[in-house]
Amino acid sequence: MTIKFTLTKITEEKDNKARLGLLETNHGTVETPVFMPVGTQATIKGMLPKEINDLGFTILLCNAYHLFLRPGHSLIAKAGGLHRFMGWDKAILTDSGGFQVFSLGKINRITDEGVTFQSYIDGSKHFIGPEKLMEIQMALGSDIAMVFDQCAAYPSSRYETKIAAERTFQWAKKSLEYHQSKHQSLFGIVQGGLFPDIRRENALKLIDLEFPGFALGGLSVGEPKPLMYDILDSTVPLLPREKPRYLMGVGSPQSILEGVSRGIDMFDCVLPTRNGRNGCLFTHHGKISITNARYKDDLSPVDQNCQCYTCQHFSRAYLRHLYMAKEMLAPILGTIHNLYMMNHLMKEIRKAILENRFNSFKKLFYEDYK
Amino acid sequence: MTIKFTLTKITEEKDNKARLGLLETNHGTVETPVFMPVGTQATIKGMLPKEINDLGFTILLCNAYHLFLRPGHSLIAKAGGLHRFMGWDKAILTDSGGFQVFSLGKINRITDEGVTFQSYIDGSKHFIGPEKLMEIQMALGSDIAMVFDQCAAYPSSRYETKIAAERTFQWAKKSLEYHQSKHQSLFGIVQGGLFPDIRRENALKLIDLEFPGFALGGLSVGEPKPLMYDILDSTVPLLPREKPRYLMGVGSPQSILEGVSRGIDMFDCVLPTRNGRNGCLFTHHGKISITNARYKDDLSPVDQNCQCYTCQHFSRAYLRHLYMAKEMLAPILGTIHNLYMMNHLMKEIRKAILENRFNSFKKLFYEDYK
Repeated sequence: MTIKFTLTKITEEKDNKARLGLLETNHGTVETPVFMPVGTQATIKGMLPKEINDLGFTILLCNAYHLFLRPGHSLIAKAGGLHRFMGWDKAILTDSGGFQVFSLGKINRITDEGVTFQSYIDGSKHFIGPEKLMEIQMALGSDIAMVFDQCAAYPSSRYETKIAAERTFQWAKKSLEYHQSKHQSLFGIVQGGLFPDIRRENALKLIDLEFPGFALGGLSVGEPKPLMYDILDSTVPLLPREKPRYLMGVGSPQSILEGVSRGIDMFDCVLPTRNGRNGCLFTHHGKISITNARYKDDLSPVDQNCQCYTCQHFSRAYLRHLYMAKEMLAPILGTIHNLYMMNHLMKEIRKAILENRFNSFKKLFYEDYK
Repeated sequence: MTIKFTLTKITEEKDNKARLGLLETNHGTVETPVFMPVGTQATIKGMLPKEINDLGFTILLCNAYHLFLRPGHSLIAKAGGLHRFMGWDKAILTDSGGFQVFSLGKINRITDEGVTFQSYIDGSKHFIGPEKLMEIQMALGSDIAMVFDQCAAYPSSRYETKIAAERTFQWAKKSLEYHQSKHQSLFGIVQGGLFPDIRRENALKLIDLEFPGFALGGLSVGEPKPLMYDILDSTVPLLPREKPRYLMGVGSPQSILEGVSRGIDMFDCVLPTRNGRNGCLFTHHGKISITNARYKDDLSPVDQNCQCYTCQHFSRAYLRHLYMAKEMLAPILGTIHNLYMMNHLMKEIRKAILENRFNSFKKLFYEDYK
């Protein structure tokens, strides 16, 4: 089967549009709103799949572009698909890679057919267009694939943004035509930068194509947060109520709260994992930089109220020691903690929506989180 | 209590002197012969303590010298000791650090009182003598501490070796006098390089001091293996039968088999962990370098007969991908595999000794292991 999305609740509160849903896949059911950890190269950096599972995650994101370049989608298909290759039997969404194609490596040429670019790994020349990307993702066998999109850089002019949005739409059509799978669902991506009218036009055309889910791309790419929230305010209400909505590349706890508040169901971001590796750890009172000298003798856990493996077993002083000594266990424990906090936040968000108290939950969160 | 060692069996086979024992500590019982993974800086690189536990290890080694320099033994004492600091509730042996003092960083001065040296971390000046090292290890609260020893470099002249061995003996006496603990046992270290008569003299004097266990130091430091085996042949029989014998810094599967064969009970080495990080993986047929191009499409596990998490879930092709992409999961999975193989080898060794078939076990091992 392909995915099945069931909207189980829409908040009864005013001032927010939060919703609860169940996303059924061939690899288990995902409760939404959901945060998807990022496993770019078929691994969440430093995490065993069983740890990701123990942390409670039910879906993760991998990057089709990276896996195309290395180790190659044909090898992964031969290995029985991405789930089997990476030892993860719950759901996987593959990112289109559009953002990466345009942000990594050298672009040689962009045409309506696709993009010719050089590998960031070895400089070798490659071409990806919508058909090729569908071939890659079908080979990977992820539960959710994304259309090929052109993500305009931030800032972009109105003209550039329009061109990119229109090309994304054409590629979405081609992606849909080429995509053939009984086991994989293909999501459309709304582009249009920070121009509400381009977003609107792009969204409406895309909706006509009847994708089983819709993503918002090209946000959280450097623009001020309020601009992103404005785009969500104007674009999300256009999207079909009964289909999942995915805000790509977002984000921070704050942005997730704002996204949920506006009716977003799915999020992904490298933030908790990357921060975890760098020693920037989430707490209920905001982020702390664990390498700071003030934690040298601090025998308390990272977060007094956190039930993660890291906080249950280790002190800030031990973690700081590991980071200072550049020990591998440092980024591992940091990642476990940040991912736990993230998943815990999503659980609390879902509970708050269920109990029609998402507004007050958000307010309390902001009061604590500096 | 301090440790209690019970010799439970001596082989009935000729041609080997293998033995089985139980080493009871305040943090659980260790079956010998045992391999201790190395957690130099209060962490086995890349491993959660719960993984080390799941792998079946009952004792690990940390380095007093490294922990003295960073984060400092006083902090660790304040944290409730090393076990609590690093979240490991089974046994810990702390290496004296003698080898590290003499092999890392810059030595300023060696006298009969101890060594003045510069930190390899920040160049700061420090002094460690036998009394200081006892203070450090008592603060760490390991189950087994080691005396301060001077490890002569390889190769060393007869004269240099004699001086170092005599100094080690004097330091052993001082260590023993200064060491006061109801919870920690102090092992002596036999030095004497590759000179059987110096080893013999050193061992006999040390035995008179009645340490609860004896180590052989300064071996596996670059000398040809047969020379090390000769030293074991001549030295081990001098050591008291009823006390544990620890061959420091050894080693490879082969060296462990040879050590066990000569009556050694305890081993430690960075080999399985360091090799694991570098992609040099143990198999029943010898080591393989997983980054080799021949494993690019190899969908079989590292070792067909291995029950470790890595081999049960991942292919050589996936592991190679992770190493090529420099993903953190690569050294983690490699370390899990090598440590599992090592612990499995020790289990099989113990079983073979119990069943009086250690000789044939060793022979079969060598036939497979190229």
